[in-house]
Amino acid sequence: MEALKNKILAEGQAFGSDILEANSFLNQQIDAPFMYEIGDEFKQRFQDKEVNKILTIEASGIAIAVCTAKSFGYPPVVFAKKAAPNESEDAFYSYIAKSLKRTTDSYVKLAKKFLSEGDQVLIIDDLLAYGGTALALCDIVKQAGAHVVGIGAVIEKEFQGGGARLREDGHMVESLAVIEKIEDGKIIFKSN
Amino acid sequence: MEALKNKILAEGQAFGSDILEANSFLNQQIDAPFMYEIGDEFKQRFQDKEVNKILTIEASGIAIAVCTAKSFGYPPVVFAKKAAPNESEDAFYSYIAKSLKRTTDSYVKLAKKFLSEGDQVLIIDDLLAYGGTALALCDIVKQAGAHVVGIGAVIEKEFQGGGARLREDGHMVESLAVIEKIEDGKIIFKSN
Repeated sequence: MEALKNKILAEGQAFGSDILEANSFLNQQIDAPFMYEIGDEFKQRFQDKEVNKILTIEASGIAIAVCTAKSFGYPPVVFAKKAAPNESEDAFYSYIAKSLKRTTDSYVKLAKKFLSEGDQVLIIDDLLAYGGTALALCDIVKQAGAHVVGIGAVIEKEFQGGGARLREDGHMVESLAVIEKIEDGKIIFKSN
Repeated sequence: MEALKNKILAEGQAFGSDILEANSFLNQQIDAPFMYEIGDEFKQRFQDKEVNKILTIEASGIAIAVCTAKSFGYPPVVFAKKAAPNESEDAFYSYIAKSLKRTTDSYVKLAKKFLSEGDQVLIIDDLLAYGGTALALCDIVKQAGAHVVGIGAVIEKEFQGGGARLREDGHMVESLAVIEKIEDGKIIFKSN
């Protein structure tokens, strides 16, 4: 998606060999009209897929998922929380993601009532890096007896391997801008 | 807003004398078309106000703020984070909210670059209870030298006093459904 690549270059900031900040339009500050363009692009990528639920995770995924819902005819949007289930544990699906980067594990939970057996789920998130979050969401969908139709990421950092891992698992992964590498703060997109 | 009150009665769940759950359409699961109706209602309530930025807080406020942006002609939406500033503290506005309910204080932070002097800020959130979050957001707007145009809450729990406190401070507060009290799990709306 050229408009996205241009936006990343104009407004994003890269540091060192692996950090990308896109908080002026994707996280923290949201450019809503641009989010609708992103939603339309996801719809085009997954046009032959039947989707009856969009699943994301707090916080940065929410705006993208809500704007993408418009392009898919408004299926319900559900967001998982980054927290350990504390009360009434059996009301939640949960998953403990082993972090490749951090020393602490991160929890992902979703109230069971929001995913049902047979749901056709499109997973949407802002960033696909090591893939930990997407794997957690896929696992939660599986726990529900539902089906992952596909995984849509706005930005994929290909060199961190999450996309490859998800594709090896058989998932259809569509990333609207794929970063091959970051060199001394310079963003190199994958040519397509 | 009658449609909202009906939705709260049909899909919300109240417990005891103070707890309301609205996670099937407002938190966790988002009914996007209904969020646009909520945005239109906020626009009507604040129709004579000039708004050039919408400020909310993660996570439940994001979908509401993004959908409300449509009704206001798409000003940028900015969301504060519930976290203590850790790195490069002077890049953030922050506020420590003393909780009336919890033993731990909660932090709210926002990168300084997203609020500027003179900004006309509409604060949007899902729930107005004790008002701690709204007060934190107002303080951050003040730190930026910007102006709080108004505060819009989808649901106000009037009996917890946050709305009164904000109105005493001179803010225009508009809540789309005002709950006067909850009695044995029964929701009593304020008549208007």
